[in-house]
Amino acid sequence: MDTERIRRVREAMQSAVADALICRLPENVLMLSGYWPLVGWSFLVFPKDGEPTCIIPHTEEQETREELWGGECISFLFGVLGAGNPYEDIAIALRAASVGRGWRRVGYEGSFESVAPPWNAAEPAIPADITRGILREAFGDQALVDATELLTSQRACKTAAEANKLRIVNEISTFGLRAFSEMVAVGVTGVELVAAVEYTIMTQGTGYKGAKRVRAFAQVATGPAETVVGFRPMEISTLRKMQPGDLALLELGVVADGFWSDRTRVRVAGKPTPQQTAVFEVVKAAQAAAVRKVRAGATAGEVDEAARALIRDAGYEKEFVHVTGHGVGLRYHEPIPIICPGSELILEQGMVHSVEPGVYIAGMGGIRLEDDILVTQTGAEVLGAFSGDLA
Amino acid sequence: MDTERIRRVREAMQSAVADALICRLPENVLMLSGYWPLVGWSFLVFPKDGEPTCIIPHTEEQETREELWGGECISFLFGVLGAGNPYEDIAIALRAASVGRGWRRVGYEGSFESVAPPWNAAEPAIPADITRGILREAFGDQALVDATELLTSQRACKTAAEANKLRIVNEISTFGLRAFSEMVAVGVTGVELVAAVEYTIMTQGTGYKGAKRVRAFAQVATGPAETVVGFRPMEISTLRKMQPGDLALLELGVVADGFWSDRTRVRVAGKPTPQQTAVFEVVKAAQAAAVRKVRAGATAGEVDEAARALIRDAGYEKEFVHVTGHGVGLRYHEPIPIICPGSELILEQGMVHSVEPGVYIAGMGGIRLEDDILVTQTGAEVLGAFSGDLA
Repeated sequence: MDTERIRRVREAMQSAVADALICRLPENVLMLSGYWPLVGWSFLVFPKDGEPTCIIPHTEEQETREELWGGECISFLFGVLGAGNPYEDIAIALRAASVGRGWRRVGYEGSFESVAPPWNAAEPAIPADITRGILREAFGDQALVDATELLTSQRACKTAAEANKLRIVNEISTFGLRAFSEMVAVGVTGVELVAAVEYTIMTQGTGYKGAKRVRAFAQVATGPAETVVGFRPMEISTLRKMQPGDLALLELGVVADGFWSDRTRVRVAGKPTPQQTAVFEVVKAAQAAAVRKVRAGATAGEVDEAARALIRDAGYEKEFVHVTGHGVGLRYHEPIPIICPGSELILEQGMVHSVEPGVYIAGMGGIRLEDDILVTQTGAEVLGAFSGDLA
Repeated sequence: MDTERIRRVREAMQSAVADALICRLPENVLMLSGYWPLVGWSFLVFPKDGEPTCIIPHTEEQETREELWGGECISFLFGVLGAGNPYEDIAIALRAASVGRGWRRVGYEGSFESVAPPWNAAEPAIPADITRGILREAFGDQALVDATELLTSQRACKTAAEANKLRIVNEISTFGLRAFSEMVAVGVTGVELVAAVEYTIMTQGTGYKGAKRVRAFAQVATGPAETVVGFRPMEISTLRKMQPGDLALLELGVVADGFWSDRTRVRVAGKPTPQQTAVFEVVKAAQAAAVRKVRAGATAGEVDEAARALIRDAGYEKEFVHVTGHGVGLRYHEPIPIICPGSELILEQGMVHSVEPGVYIAGMGGIRLEDDILVTQTGAEVLGAFSGDLA
């Protein structure tokens, strides 16, 4: 059990005067219980005092037995003949878990508009009006409070156990970074690179340091026109064959047992041009400078400026169009911290964020390097460190 | 433009007295506009009368130009320095799209609790309290009506253009079914099979009949203990090496440009036992019998019974633990139609649903065959027909 996590959330609930939290999103169920739902039909009742209750589809009994830190487990028939309306079963279980507890304020996931998928990423289940209805019925409209800020701010600083999980997923992501580096060549397509990176991560990552459920989400842009928009949150990998001197830009999300990494590498097919080499070296130096600036007590703005100053001095200020980093961990992108110009947010020990300067130049294309780092008292730990050269 | 789709939705809006629909979920944006959002930050304003307005991140301007059927497009800066709070930009665009229209009832996606991910399946964006807030502000609380039922019932019957897209994604899925069949062997793991199936679909499926964005979500259970729970909505593929006589069960979701297929195949490593062969033949015959029963005008219960009777007669009634089928198309699983015992729901031309009888026996494991079919006036069209033998 991650006792540090439980203690910290309970303290936050004390301050927010929340008697219990009801979570359905896999990212929050995982943080509070150790169990990563397969299909998103699991509900966690997490009281400020006393044991939690996990309400699960009967099809996930084995996984909860293996993963759940403790507390009670109530299962309902799911997806088989004889199963009723799951919401009726969940409502009954919610009442059973809360009856006689005298909860006056119950937190729910009201404002999560970006979510991490469950293991079944093909079909997330989310808390919408039906979930809200059974919560209202169980606790009364007056009792319900939006716990999004409480949960989000709790997630800003990872516990030692969570940081270790993020170390593992970032190490797994390097299997994909290596496959990408080895495979970029004239004639290869972005689609082929994506398929190879995802294949490698699934086959080499599953089982790595105990990781059970691993999946990669890769995107590869190639050539000037595709990579120049490589700052977009999501690319479309194409069947375009790489030409000599083309850049390939890999954007790579990986999840291992509910913990996420976010990495980027670039590589040239054949021989890089002097401009590509120069920009790559600037971006690499900018990333290193930002990482050197990271420590508990530094501001996010200082870290951003460390990267941006180098890029500005090299003449590419306007081509570095985005922030230097964002939180990551229980989701692909987390809102705390954002490493951006002028931010006075103070970095704290345990924060995990990306460091990802990038320069995008019409005609040449985009060059970005991205790694996830853990903020420590004295500096930064690069998770799953991996070099990755331009050529 | 899919004029049949537009006409039908407008008729439904007339009956439901909805002046406009506001959609954010990629599955609904796609149905009503032809454009499949990359990251789920696109909003579609679809009026009963007049042109729709699509509000998009500026990073998706190229895709909307290529895909959107028509109407106005308003873009906002997204994910770059200088971008504001996207919800403020979206709220302004919503007002611009609706000012002076006099809409008294505006439908929103209130009760979608299972959702299809956007192209970026690693991080879906969903309509929660913040989206609700800007809708309330734009239209007033009184005007908002939950359009979930309207949208869901509209999706029950696919148009000719949608059916064609589902033909394509099901044909793409056969590339994965073939790779699976060819690769199942003693010593191979479920993880390796998953990785190979997904690799094959991405490399062979992208570009097939014009498909641009293709992704597979495969799961493979192997051996008696894993496949006997193969009726679960989502498996965990493992590093267990297949033994002689082991079953492998592939559950395969594929998306191509926002249209989904759902298939299942089983295969034995080495020589099947007489029991495996017997059960496989029963399941195959049950699937064929159900498909033969399908036509516009048949009831869902009749189709279920056609499969179930054969399995019952073979002595496996209690081992066929689930329904015979479910809707599929704009999501991996859609709620209309459900092909289950006793259902008097009448199948209509254009419905697309799975036909997936399965028998799960302790000691032997699970055997299921699943294909997606299109209901026609005279029968059923199996989409992407592919045999797939047991051994």
